[in-house]
Amino acid sequence: MIILGLDPGTAATGYGVVRRVEGPRQVVLVECGVIRTRARTPLAERLHTIYDGVAELLQRHRPAAVAVEEVFYARNVRTTIVLGHARGVVLLAAAQAGIVVHEFPPAEIKKAVVGTGAATKEQVQFMLMRLLRLRTVPSPSDAADGVAAALTYCFGTRFPLEVPLASPDSAHRATTS
Amino acid sequence: MIILGLDPGTAATGYGVVRRVEGPRQVVLVECGVIRTRARTPLAERLHTIYDGVAELLQRHRPAAVAVEEVFYARNVRTTIVLGHARGVVLLAAAQAGIVVHEFPPAEIKKAVVGTGAATKEQVQFMLMRLLRLRTVPSPSDAADGVAAALTYCFGTRFPLEVPLASPDSAHRATTS
Repeated sequence: MIILGLDPGTAATGYGVVRRVEGPRQVVLVECGVIRTRARTPLAERLHTIYDGVAELLQRHRPAAVAVEEVFYARNVRTTIVLGHARGVVLLAAAQAGIVVHEFPPAEIKKAVVGTGAATKEQVQFMLMRLLRLRTVPSPSDAADGVAAALTYCFGTRFPLEVPLASPDSAHRATTS
Repeated sequence: MIILGLDPGTAATGYGVVRRVEGPRQVVLVECGVIRTRARTPLAERLHTIYDGVAELLQRHRPAAVAVEEVFYARNVRTTIVLGHARGVVLLAAAQAGIVVHEFPPAEIKKAVVGTGAATKEQVQFMLMRLLRLRTVPSPSDAADGVAAALTYCFGTRFPLEVPLASPDSAHRATTS
């Protein structure tokens, strides 16, 4: 079962593709990265780029579900509404592909990955490395946030029972498109 | 020249299609109405409905431009971000159709239609009737807001010089889909 986690943003939409597998290595990272847009491009064109990027990921990986962080605020009102634009086209791409979108509150993502809803960003990133046996933290942080959302769907709200011993592999490809 | 004005919203996206013509009757209303979505439907599905509705309007009328009210706030943060979602898919539909989107601040729309940026909603609606020679105000108000945005593009920021004498016609078809 493949899950696509997304962290929508107008400048950078992070994504993480994970596969849930049988056995002790419960979840593996397939791919993560960022869809970037240019700051000087009109908003409508930037949304087009984000939509195309997400549609491409959906078509290539055919995930069973899409996981997105639930956001109701941002630094300021202007940022909030622009973030809403990016989220809108992301949800649309999933709906058009017939894939259900699961939205998780930030605290639920932290709880699923770290075990506590009050975890810091650094703790989340550290646990992503441990859980997915990565040599480095998925970067940039938008990609890590996408991976965290995907993991949350895999684990549900339960704390992941089994934290594997360190055995990094090369699954982590922080691609930037 | 046909202009599509849109007032995006998750529950109701108002639209107005106007045609700029030569002669004393500068602008005529082609069609106005509302794209509605059901409150209990998941957000992604509602965005799909809005997107499809706007895409249909773009294909049927092939406007030279799309006009949208510029919005940076709403009643509360939750409403603001959800409004952002709806605007996002509207801008996307235009970008995909290769049509430029013009965003106008609320005060600019009021100034273009009424002559003052401090005009009330009722004054805007009254002037829409006068300018487009309608028997009634375009309704619901979302449809009127779409028409006002389209008129603003036609008039620019200049006050429309010629307010026609009352001679209502039947161009006003407040369709609801």
